[in-house]
Amino acid sequence: MTTKIIFDTDPGIDDAMALLFIEASPALDLVAVTTVFGNADIDTTTRNALYLKNRFGLAAPVYKGTDKPLRRPRNPSPTFVHGENGLGDVELTGLVAAEPEAKPAHQAIIDLARANPGEITLVAVGPLTNLALALDADPEVATLLKGVVIMGGAFAVAGKPGNVTPVAEANIWNDPEAADRVFTAPWHVTVIGLDVTTQVIMSPDFMEALEASAGPAGEFLNAISKPYAAFYGGRDGIVGCCVHDAAAVAYVIDESLFEVRRGSVRVVTEGIALGQTLQKVEGELFGPSAWDDQPIHSAAIAVDADRLLALYARTMNGVVAGG
Amino acid sequence: MTTKIIFDTDPGIDDAMALLFIEASPALDLVAVTTVFGNADIDTTTRNALYLKNRFGLAAPVYKGTDKPLRRPRNPSPTFVHGENGLGDVELTGLVAAEPEAKPAHQAIIDLARANPGEITLVAVGPLTNLALALDADPEVATLLKGVVIMGGAFAVAGKPGNVTPVAEANIWNDPEAADRVFTAPWHVTVIGLDVTTQVIMSPDFMEALEASAGPAGEFLNAISKPYAAFYGGRDGIVGCCVHDAAAVAYVIDESLFEVRRGSVRVVTEGIALGQTLQKVEGELFGPSAWDDQPIHSAAIAVDADRLLALYARTMNGVVAGG
Repeated sequence: MTTKIIFDTDPGIDDAMALLFIEASPALDLVAVTTVFGNADIDTTTRNALYLKNRFGLAAPVYKGTDKPLRRPRNPSPTFVHGENGLGDVELTGLVAAEPEAKPAHQAIIDLARANPGEITLVAVGPLTNLALALDADPEVATLLKGVVIMGGAFAVAGKPGNVTPVAEANIWNDPEAADRVFTAPWHVTVIGLDVTTQVIMSPDFMEALEASAGPAGEFLNAISKPYAAFYGGRDGIVGCCVHDAAAVAYVIDESLFEVRRGSVRVVTEGIALGQTLQKVEGELFGPSAWDDQPIHSAAIAVDADRLLALYARTMNGVVAGG
Repeated sequence: MTTKIIFDTDPGIDDAMALLFIEASPALDLVAVTTVFGNADIDTTTRNALYLKNRFGLAAPVYKGTDKPLRRPRNPSPTFVHGENGLGDVELTGLVAAEPEAKPAHQAIIDLARANPGEITLVAVGPLTNLALALDADPEVATLLKGVVIMGGAFAVAGKPGNVTPVAEANIWNDPEAADRVFTAPWHVTVIGLDVTTQVIMSPDFMEALEASAGPAGEFLNAISKPYAAFYGGRDGIVGCCVHDAAAVAYVIDESLFEVRRGSVRVVTEGIALGQTLQKVEGELFGPSAWDDQPIHSAAIAVDADRLLALYARTMNGVVAGG
């Protein structure tokens, strides 16, 4: 049985890698793409989602989401990571004008959840603003989704706690209030943080092999991976591309790739730690705190990187798991 | 050659363990005890410091410090940890009235530093308010001390990040503004955090052995350890007493007991993460942040617990290291 997916995304290089991974997976059924600002402005990320849909023949509709955080001005786009066009400034071959659906992203999330109660997993790999808007417009959406899998923040006990600041990851930092709203809502959330995703690296060799074996998608993925790998450029020992967003997709396909820790999650919305994600581990006792009486969510603290990479390659190469 | 020590303390059970450790160590020369609120109110912690001085014949003078944080009301005393009398409510046998020196603690720190430039290590195991007051009154004190060793916060990548809240340790949480002032001053700071000190446990057997071998001090330490161990009561797998404050002393005697990480340190002074200590590891690159252009300090990230406990026992038993 396949899992229905709404992919909330700000493409973004690793977003594109994740989107084509969803489309290729026989375990997943992509029912909608919802866009959000983040790796670029909303017009650019929406254009990129439509471009990927058209170029790779995705059936799922694209819904345009919000252009700014709930309560802050938008941070500058990280063009030094994702390029001016959001896809590493590779040429968007065959680009044609296309429009998203008329319905805004957060309403599409609500309507799809209501039409398919308990069936849809929302994979969110950008700022969590669309999700917060959906909660505000219809709080019951939290109980109507099968689950929410987020790439964002950092939770584990090893590796990098931040990429924008020493303690904040970009998706969360781009809208901390929205993230805190999402983590304090009673849906089933699993969050895959930066400290885990930076442990899964697609090397240049891996990408070359993908180009050779995975058809046009493989060629495109290798092309957009090069500027992304150049950004990492060996810093923090990373040679290649971090599999940030595709890690959240991998969790939906095979939870056993990850070790998770249960606990309530809050996001810092002020001061020097703005955008930091903090989990109070379930069962630990403290004095009264902001974590009391909040929903318990799962945060990834470890990953089997080799097995995740093998799943990605196998999926992109069209080989069904076990086949 | 011995190291001159000013011990800034809020006794406190583990403070007493650390104070008698300093006094017993042939490597250390205790030149002053400065008191601060924290584990109890200032009158109680000062009374306890004077009690320990009189009962165990300490030569060092006791200077009374501040009774409250720089800019906040004082948090309630943790009587459920240290008892109403700050020493586990064990009977203070032979208690006599005694007065501290007239000079306030922060001025004593300044005057001793000026009289012994480059010679004194300040070991601070309570809220950092006296240190902040000393910096405010005479910023050059930062360059006149040999070093500052702090028990507080949490920095490492394993274990507990907080004891008061899910992310805050009590000494820092009790005066976050003072702590941030101290960590952003240009002295040589080493900080031993909660996540490291909770890895060093004095078991009931260890304390019984100390009672049998270390004379009156051993008897007293075993007595005050019992209510402290009862507080831990097996939580987080801790059977016995965490060697919080004595770990900072051990660092002065033998740095090789610890692995440290270098980087600038800030303290969260607002919001849900109030009192959290955050280190930007030296050499890591981010966008502009509150850690830029701040002094680099060392934070412990690992400890050789067995060797630290052996040093403590050997010292309390009067056996000179190597002797």
